[in-house]
Amino acid sequence: MLTTHPFDDDKLREECGVFGIFANTQAAAITALGLHALQHRGQEAAGIVSFDGNRFHLQHTMGLVGDHFSSEAVIAKLKGGQAIGHVRYATTGDTTIRNVQPLYADFEFGGFALAHNGNLTNAQTLRRQLVRRGCLFQSTTDTEVIVHLMAIARGGSPVDRLIEAVRQVEGAFSLVALTSDAVIGVRDPLGVRPLVLGKLGDTHILTSETCALDIVGADFIRDVEPGEMVVLDKDGVHSMRPFQPQNRRFCIFEYIYFARPDSVMEGTSVYQARQRIGRELAREAGVPADVVVPVPDSGVPAALGYAMEAGVPFDLGIIRNHYVGRTFIEPTDQIRHLGVKLKHNANRAMIEGKRVVLVDDSIVRGTTSKKIVEMVRAAGAAEVHMRISSPPTSHPCFYGIDTPEQSKLLAHRLSVDEMRDFIKADSLAFISLDGLYRAMGEPKRDPSNIRYCDACFTGDYPIALTDNLDSPPVEANAVRIRA
Amino acid sequence: MLTTHPFDDDKLREECGVFGIFANTQAAAITALGLHALQHRGQEAAGIVSFDGNRFHLQHTMGLVGDHFSSEAVIAKLKGGQAIGHVRYATTGDTTIRNVQPLYADFEFGGFALAHNGNLTNAQTLRRQLVRRGCLFQSTTDTEVIVHLMAIARGGSPVDRLIEAVRQVEGAFSLVALTSDAVIGVRDPLGVRPLVLGKLGDTHILTSETCALDIVGADFIRDVEPGEMVVLDKDGVHSMRPFQPQNRRFCIFEYIYFARPDSVMEGTSVYQARQRIGRELAREAGVPADVVVPVPDSGVPAALGYAMEAGVPFDLGIIRNHYVGRTFIEPTDQIRHLGVKLKHNANRAMIEGKRVVLVDDSIVRGTTSKKIVEMVRAAGAAEVHMRISSPPTSHPCFYGIDTPEQSKLLAHRLSVDEMRDFIKADSLAFISLDGLYRAMGEPKRDPSNIRYCDACFTGDYPIALTDNLDSPPVEANAVRIRA
Amino acid sequence: MLTTHPFDDDKLREECGVFGIFANTQAAAITALGLHALQHRGQEAAGIVSFDGNRFHLQHTMGLVGDHFSSEAVIAKLKGGQAIGHVRYATTGDTTIRNVQPLYADFEFGGFALAHNGNLTNAQTLRRQLVRRGCLFQSTTDTEVIVHLMAIARGGSPVDRLIEAVRQVEGAFSLVALTSDAVIGVRDPLGVRPLVLGKLGDTHILTSETCALDIVGADFIRDVEPGEMVVLDKDGVHSMRPFQPQNRRFCIFEYIYFARPDSVMEGTSVYQARQRIGRELAREAGVPADVVVPVPDSGVPAALGYAMEAGVPFDLGIIRNHYVGRTFIEPTDQIRHLGVKLKHNANRAMIEGKRVVLVDDSIVRGTTSKKIVEMVRAAGAAEVHMRISSPPTSHPCFYGIDTPEQSKLLAHRLSVDEMRDFIKADSLAFISLDGLYRAMGEPKRDPSNIRYCDACFTGDYPIALTDNLDSPPVEANAVRIRA
Amino acid sequence: MLTTHPFDDDKLREECGVFGIFANTQAAAITALGLHALQHRGQEAAGIVSFDGNRFHLQHTMGLVGDHFSSEAVIAKLKGGQAIGHVRYATTGDTTIRNVQPLYADFEFGGFALAHNGNLTNAQTLRRQLVRRGCLFQSTTDTEVIVHLMAIARGGSPVDRLIEAVRQVEGAFSLVALTSDAVIGVRDPLGVRPLVLGKLGDTHILTSETCALDIVGADFIRDVEPGEMVVLDKDGVHSMRPFQPQNRRFCIFEYIYFARPDSVMEGTSVYQARQRIGRELAREAGVPADVVVPVPDSGVPAALGYAMEAGVPFDLGIIRNHYVGRTFIEPTDQIRHLGVKLKHNANRAMIEGKRVVLVDDSIVRGTTSKKIVEMVRAAGAAEVHMRISSPPTSHPCFYGIDTPEQSKLLAHRLSVDEMRDFIKADSLAFISLDGLYRAMGEPKRDPSNIRYCDACFTGDYPIALTDNLDSPPVEANAVRIRA
Repeated sequence: MLTTHPFDDDKLREECGVFGIFANTQAAAITALGLHALQHRGQEAAGIVSFDGNRFHLQHTMGLVGDHFSSEAVIAKLKGGQAIGHVRYATTGDTTIRNVQPLYADFEFGGFALAHNGNLTNAQTLRRQLVRRGCLFQSTTDTEVIVHLMAIARGGSPVDRLIEAVRQVEGAFSLVALTSDAVIGVRDPLGVRPLVLGKLGDTHILTSETCALDIVGADFIRDVEPGEMVVLDKDGVHSMRPFQPQNRRFCIFEYIYFARPDSVMEGTSVYQARQRIGRELAREAGVPADVVVPVPDSGVPAALGYAMEAGVPFDLGIIRNHYVGRTFIEPTDQIRHLGVKLKHNANRAMIEGKRVVLVDDSIVRGTTSKKIVEMVRAAGAAEVHMRISSPPTSHPCFYGIDTPEQSKLLAHRLSVDEMRDFIKADSLAFISLDGLYRAMGEPKRDPSNIRYCDACFTGDYPIALTDNLDSPPVEANAVRIRA
Repeated sequence: MLTTHPFDDDKLREECGVFGIFANTQAAAITALGLHALQHRGQEAAGIVSFDGNRFHLQHTMGLVGDHFSSEAVIAKLKGGQAIGHVRYATTGDTTIRNVQPLYADFEFGGFALAHNGNLTNAQTLRRQLVRRGCLFQSTTDTEVIVHLMAIARGGSPVDRLIEAVRQVEGAFSLVALTSDAVIGVRDPLGVRPLVLGKLGDTHILTSETCALDIVGADFIRDVEPGEMVVLDKDGVHSMRPFQPQNRRFCIFEYIYFARPDSVMEGTSVYQARQRIGRELAREAGVPADVVVPVPDSGVPAALGYAMEAGVPFDLGIIRNHYVGRTFIEPTDQIRHLGVKLKHNANRAMIEGKRVVLVDDSIVRGTTSKKIVEMVRAAGAAEVHMRISSPPTSHPCFYGIDTPEQSKLLAHRLSVDEMRDFIKADSLAFISLDGLYRAMGEPKRDPSNIRYCDACFTGDYPIALTDNLDSPPVEANAVRIRA
Repeated sequence: MLTTHPFDDDKLREECGVFGIFANTQAAAITALGLHALQHRGQEAAGIVSFDGNRFHLQHTMGLVGDHFSSEAVIAKLKGGQAIGHVRYATTGDTTIRNVQPLYADFEFGGFALAHNGNLTNAQTLRRQLVRRGCLFQSTTDTEVIVHLMAIARGGSPVDRLIEAVRQVEGAFSLVALTSDAVIGVRDPLGVRPLVLGKLGDTHILTSETCALDIVGADFIRDVEPGEMVVLDKDGVHSMRPFQPQNRRFCIFEYIYFARPDSVMEGTSVYQARQRIGRELAREAGVPADVVVPVPDSGVPAALGYAMEAGVPFDLGIIRNHYVGRTFIEPTDQIRHLGVKLKHNANRAMIEGKRVVLVDDSIVRGTTSKKIVEMVRAAGAAEVHMRISSPPTSHPCFYGIDTPEQSKLLAHRLSVDEMRDFIKADSLAFISLDGLYRAMGEPKRDPSNIRYCDACFTGDYPIALTDNLDSPPVEANAVRIRA
Repeated sequence: MLTTHPFDDDKLREECGVFGIFANTQAAAITALGLHALQHRGQEAAGIVSFDGNRFHLQHTMGLVGDHFSSEAVIAKLKGGQAIGHVRYATTGDTTIRNVQPLYADFEFGGFALAHNGNLTNAQTLRRQLVRRGCLFQSTTDTEVIVHLMAIARGGSPVDRLIEAVRQVEGAFSLVALTSDAVIGVRDPLGVRPLVLGKLGDTHILTSETCALDIVGADFIRDVEPGEMVVLDKDGVHSMRPFQPQNRRFCIFEYIYFARPDSVMEGTSVYQARQRIGRELAREAGVPADVVVPVPDSGVPAALGYAMEAGVPFDLGIIRNHYVGRTFIEPTDQIRHLGVKLKHNANRAMIEGKRVVLVDDSIVRGTTSKKIVEMVRAAGAAEVHMRISSPPTSHPCFYGIDTPEQSKLLAHRLSVDEMRDFIKADSLAFISLDGLYRAMGEPKRDPSNIRYCDACFTGDYPIALTDNLDSPPVEANAVRIRA
């Protein structure tokens, strides 16, 4: 219910989710289900690659997992007992089918498929070097550099080549790869993006979140460690450490908004984390009120925490229309201003004459917040107080989250007081950085030992932004459209 | 958020929603938005008819409103300042395009379009008479008999003919009709189905629920009265009373489940009614527990009411995947048993080791309830108590709600104790009939003056079931499929 | 090869073709093949209705027969041993799916389906009477009046009702109807449109042309006579004569252009008729030349006849591109003038420096002829002489052929000399009316006993044009579009 | 009209056609028209790449040119004044969108697109070397090796790199390439496949056949010479000779069947060549007869030549149904044997009781010929004599024509007498090899100076078959399907 904001245009967006399984007679069907559970991590495209002992089978689609991969005929074509899959939300460049993952390539050693969650920060630098060497790129994704680095590696097994490749890339990455012998998972040395290991009978699974294990009835075993490579093959599960050890810096925004509330990440329930943030927020920035109202759907756990801590009734003062699809474009100019009403309606009976605390998880551009406040006020609220369960989002993410350019971030341009005026609330408060760390069980944010990646709030980027320092981004020379 | 269960197969389903507007330069676009807000009342098909002073324009589609009517090109074709629309869930017969409403017919007096929410109980009897007389039916809907009765009426104006027609039909109906001069609304003498009158600037609107007024920014004026006909034309709003007065019998299930929680019906907020039912349920059937968990999405207001009354924490112990579409058919037999997991996942962190009260609005066949209990138990619940915010659904509806045949209704076959065993809950309780009436503000259900239609719980049908008494149902002779 | 001009916009167009079969286990598949062979008689839409002993099954499609009815799944749905089908080119009114035939209606006696080739000349007059009586029309086709006349008939069997109905209509009609017991064929008293009876094993077939018998391997038995009704049922073939006898007036244009050259109509091979017309044309209007070139594809047999008679070599001096579909719209304004070149190219090697006789079957608006002459001249022809294998088309058809309004007919506006100047040919000649009759084996056109309907050349209409005399055409009040 | 056999399954198939234009404001639209005229050279897929001075624009489609590239919106996206295009029939490997040409690649020097007609005979050998070196292939086409050879070339301009690449490949190729500065054409040293240069105003065009010049109103300048590279850039037309001179060996089958009859190749009209072959065939293998009937559509010019030379009447004794699309799959097993009748019908009136000479251009597997003979006999022919306007096709082509494996070629397995018995004709004759050369204006086939590539008749392959000698074909490891 609170898992996702499928159609919000004023939210940050996770780029990707990954899934891999070895070895199960239902490999492709299970991968499809896993991707369906990860749909909140990318709704733009999906893909599955399987291997049947002889050939690899690829299926890519634009759109939702269920629109393509729920067909028995499609699954029947994805033969074989090992498979990997990917859901994607594209951040830059072409949103065309050739960028849909998993990527596939024919190597001298045979076929190889790769699915990537995260973003490489030296991809363009590497790409320029590879093109100069004579490599031809078929996509505009950062992920493809890994494949070319493998192709020109000094040889050896697919695992050796993959290690040689990932040692050269910088950035955030949780990878799942498929060879004719194995399914391989790798997590970058800081562990910015999640990756977990699960078990279904004798079969092992690597995937982004535990909710993708739940849907197929698999048991959670453990998180893949930062900097760890896990190989699933016929001899079982093998763990390797191809990188120098570093301090872990898991993305704290996964707890605030990206992950599904029923997932458990690095040992912590996402739902409980959100509820604790809400409690902390009530302690830090409580205000006299008659009702606590979540901005649907993601604000619910934090709003419940806030309401419990503040002793104020919780009610669904805003109702969401679940039939809104991407396709509902307001049909004429004159009524285009209706905007937010297509998705939300104030529940007037619960709001009229009341002092309302609205709880939301973040403010990006601020446009939706402004409309929500206006709608609640028009429904007769006496006061409207906005409480946000994250610190102000003032910096872009380079590690796999789609953020607007910095100048579009409301918190980059305005102070909290100015933001309050912009959204026309009676008051506005964000949880503090230390409050956020307290909700996560830390005493505070310790600058000498920062536990999470919080660069979007602090600008403190834990991995070098090589491409950004070096040079302007490489634009693709071509626009491809395939009918 | 809690408005609808778009894809549940174990819920009763409202058949239809209607909308009409006179006279507005944006008539078709506003009708499309109104239908979008009524989408929970019918997801199978939608249609809009407009009149531009010269010609009528018709657009019908299978599927959701937004999939077709959000196109600027489509709206541009629906020219004119007056329009009516319809969303539909078909209960019987063909689910083909020719049954999609509004129905349209060319009369001697000109064009006429009709949209119907409800179900006629003497339609088959009338149809046989009309066919014998030489009338050719083009659809298998009950609604078409009204159109033929108008065609053979003794003449006069469209309004006169419509009055002559509706006086001959029995059953539940809230109609919205379009002529070249007017938009007309009619509600059956008992007022089983809702119909409201609203105002947008100088324009008047007739529609099923107030949420369809909210979305277009219109003001609610009043409910159309049972047995009232309202005519919107260039001279304003006219009210007529074509029927003998009768005691009103509004459908109580609209409050329990069908209507959107942000709608107000017959003066009562649907959300508040559900919350009061939850409170009453806690008083009637409280049980020691650690957490109250709604079965998403419709159980939330009743669960909040229950939790408040019982003083037990409310939490989202079941998470719903919002990306489930009709198309997600489990791809292979072997994994088809996953079923409910495609839509819901237990939020283990909030459930494990706890005594859980699950709150749902109804039990129809019981299949989903059984799986939900099993899922919650598998997530580690210590006890699972099911509380239902309606009395046992033991009788089918003949007034416009899709119910399974009586033998499929769990409450028809089993006692409450047997139902508890069937769904494998530790305890099961339904709100009592009197408790339900109390929540609606009555002292109790007074058999001498029954305030609502509650036939699905009691078998006490307030309108004659003529077709069922007379004869077996007429089956269509043909199956039409159009490419 | 010469059967059809699928995409020419300057040709008259046959409206329809019909097919019916009783009783064959492959009824629907055979009907689909028959319609495929009749595709030249209507490319806009197609439909098949079958009866399986219990229910009727309907399938309608916009577009070509093969695009929809070549699917095994579609044919499998058309269950049963008796079926009728229809291909259509719409002349007036809506080109929407609701006008696609066969029409189907539920009568008191059961289901009934009707397919019509031709056009009724008193349909609007009858329609007004029927609407006044309370009949509701579901389509804008003239054919639907027959169905309503049957519905209000004094009763009796389907055959009795159909006889009562067809006695009231005027115009040209070859009908094929399907009841639960029989397949029925009727031809109007003058026999304007064709209808033939064939046999496939023990099964009988009624269809428009013999080529539809050939494709399924059926034998031709005989033409259905003008004014005859043929009933195919379990007892065999029954013939009835429901009309007063009249002199036959078969459409002579079927020989000139509409019918497929491999069909035999009223005992005469269409191909041979065309060749004889070509010979006659050479005798009447020969000219010294080096090469005879047909305008592809329909001009070939007449051109061969001309060449043989004139002793001039025949060559394909114009090459047709067979990949032209309806969808090839010239993509930009600037190159839109290319027009005819998309379909034809001059075969320069056969034309350059030569005196060319072009042979075509008719000139309607003259636009294509003009471009063809220009193209041939641009390819280096020394002289270009146009010879037409029909008399000047100066009058519209009201009996089932799509003709432009009279003012658009080049032969209505201009003399032959003026037409020659318009198309910029060195000479232009049409076959004479008497020459045309000679080619058909008559001594000449005998005004006291006219053997064919030749109204498009003479304005001598053999059936009353009741609708045109009475009143202006009834326009539909509504535009329906179904998604 | 006689240009193509779009749906015959018993014909050899040309693999590809190419088109390029520099520099015209309507570049993409003109390319689309040119490809439309070349549609007979490949119906499976089509693609266009344009360059607008800044970016390359790519559009690929499965299916016919007109189905995609006739859309104004599609053409509008293909911005820029220079463009190349390709139509394709795939011979081997995947028939998926990633193999559709033109191929596009981002090089260090910028974008580059390549379209290829022909087939490389050392592609697999080169591919293995390139993969070993670290090159990743994105398609399974032979053409991609040229792109990789350019990528690893010692550098220099695109033209230098392309020269370095084509010097390493063996086989038949007519290439058209697009860079940011130029459109480049190259023809292999033997000139097996055609390539012509044309002019439209100030704009130059390179394309496979002159019919593609005609459709856009361009003038033919000259054939590109075997072994010549032509560069069109802002300074005009440049000619280069990157290869050692060799004797030309143009594909003689282009005259017999592949090319459009209205094209002129190497100075000879294709239509006239076919007619001369027909005359030669009558001289070599005349037989007493009453009618000469072409097997439609490609047999017409040869049949006319035969008829003229033999003094026997020519008639269209077989009629082709032009509405046959690829989609008309016979809908049930029981009627699948109808086969050829879907496309052809005997014109009984012209055949019955006659001695018939059927003229066709080739016999590949013999299956269609057998059915045609059977159909003509069933229509009452007294005798059926088959005459073929090519020598027996006994060897596969490796230079860009799709031939069945040798064992499937009827002429490889059987003598002419045995073939006659197989197709059940009264007599069968093929034109002799010397007769064919005489028809082309040579005294005879001179083994010491063979003028054409006639390997399919003789097994005399003029270019080394390196891949076939070396090793078994490389199979793709993966099957890709993209939704």
